[in-house]
Amino acid sequence: MIRRLAIIGVGLIGGSFALALKKNVAVGEVVGLGRSRGNLAAALERRVIDRVADDAASAVREADLVFLSVPVGQMSATLGQIAPHLSAQAIVTDAGSTKQGIIETARSALGSSFPRFIPGHPIAGAELSGAAAARDDLYRNRKVVMTPVQQTDRKALEEVRMLWQTCGAEVLEMTPADHDAIFAAVSHLPHVLAFALVDMLRARPNADTLFDFAGGGFRDFTRIAASSPEMWRDILEANRDALMGEIKSYSEMLSLLARALENKDWPQLEAVFRRASERRNAWTADTRPRSDE
Amino acid sequence: MIRRLAIIGVGLIGGSFALALKKNVAVGEVVGLGRSRGNLAAALERRVIDRVADDAASAVREADLVFLSVPVGQMSATLGQIAPHLSAQAIVTDAGSTKQGIIETARSALGSSFPRFIPGHPIAGAELSGAAAARDDLYRNRKVVMTPVQQTDRKALEEVRMLWQTCGAEVLEMTPADHDAIFAAVSHLPHVLAFALVDMLRARPNADTLFDFAGGGFRDFTRIAASSPEMWRDILEANRDALMGEIKSYSEMLSLLARALENKDWPQLEAVFRRASERRNAWTADTRPRSDE
Repeated sequence: MIRRLAIIGVGLIGGSFALALKKNVAVGEVVGLGRSRGNLAAALERRVIDRVADDAASAVREADLVFLSVPVGQMSATLGQIAPHLSAQAIVTDAGSTKQGIIETARSALGSSFPRFIPGHPIAGAELSGAAAARDDLYRNRKVVMTPVQQTDRKALEEVRMLWQTCGAEVLEMTPADHDAIFAAVSHLPHVLAFALVDMLRARPNADTLFDFAGGGFRDFTRIAASSPEMWRDILEANRDALMGEIKSYSEMLSLLARALENKDWPQLEAVFRRASERRNAWTADTRPRSDE
Repeated sequence: MIRRLAIIGVGLIGGSFALALKKNVAVGEVVGLGRSRGNLAAALERRVIDRVADDAASAVREADLVFLSVPVGQMSATLGQIAPHLSAQAIVTDAGSTKQGIIETARSALGSSFPRFIPGHPIAGAELSGAAAARDDLYRNRKVVMTPVQQTDRKALEEVRMLWQTCGAEVLEMTPADHDAIFAAVSHLPHVLAFALVDMLRARPNADTLFDFAGGGFRDFTRIAASSPEMWRDILEANRDALMGEIKSYSEMLSLLARALENKDWPQLEAVFRRASERRNAWTADTRPRSDE
């Protein structure tokens, strides 16, 4: 039982965590801190949080658990603000989409409290954002990745793991480097590719005609290009090295396909398409993800 | 009123055309020709077609309209088979995803009948395929592109246009070259990009882990990578030149993003993401495509 939970950044992710714990009577008071008055009012109204904090100090004072669900680019400033005010036994955890950078930031910001920083990444999301979109079942049957390091307090890790399980999530552990490499490939790269296609076509003189004739395939391929520009700029900044490697690999793959097209090597192109199609169909049969990462 | 309609390739596209015309009492008998006995039996059972033809000759004999909905790669052989058996006033139209190559094929296969070949491309499709998936509303509120050439018989063109309008479609006209350029950008390129990503990740030693952690964004981005390998090999072959140009442009766009990442030029990356996100959101607000091209 968490007596006091502080949610720093009361959006879809933080709000849904609070709602799921409340529903399972796993939390006492929930205190929220955020930038938007309107959003915090909606969070209060929907009882996502019980109280709005005026500043970082009052948000984390006497909190057993501090949940950081601010954009990755704001983690450093946020950790700096809360660090002096954490109670001695407080556990701090986060929901950032990249892990290595945040861990190093936490290490320097938290000092002796760093062992009770539990790095996490819930693989969940939805089309909507903000406290108004928060729901108590967002994490049900979803994966949450925890990326502890050598100094991580195992007892604190187990507490956070149990809370995620209370939310209905499946908790997995991996190294921060593995995490960042995996998500560079399956999430960050596709986002960059989708943004790139839309911006390329947007700049054409016949852009309106192009978008007029774009169909359902284009719609799905580019859906992630509607994502938040700031959030993705932050993620790229935090996971730059892994992503640079992925863009390089992908460019090589594209060059290979361009050469096959140049050489009219239809069997090679069909082989690529066949392997991709088989793998994609096997994956869909395997799993049925419901939403965004 | 079409007295006899021949559907060559009785799948989702051809079958839905027949069903829509039947529903609107715009066609007498529908004769079907296809490769799969099981699929033709399903088409008969669902009354998509009224009769199965044994060969191309009997399929098109005395047909007023011949609708070609075979894969692009089979258009040439199909046109060669039907050409000697077409009645003098028969109109031939197609539903191929590329137009310039098919027009040249039709020109040499049909000879003096070429003016009554009406090149068309319905921008519609669905997850499912085959006659079992055909439905009479597939083309409702969808676009159909017609790409006539100088020799095209305008009266035949108007007849085909009216039939598509009877199916509920909006008919537009453009040059074959414009058509192929537009679809290279908004359809063929995204398909290649999606196939490329899945095949690249599939080949990794940790592929299973990667697919395990792929979420909803990946699912939508790669949905078109589940498409038919043969069909897409054919489309690439038919639209090679335009697609080579698009892959080149896209590779340059990716290089630009890679350089920005290398140079830590976060404002430039955010600007690309912001423009893409705004354009993508404006497009969704504009239009609500229901399915695949």
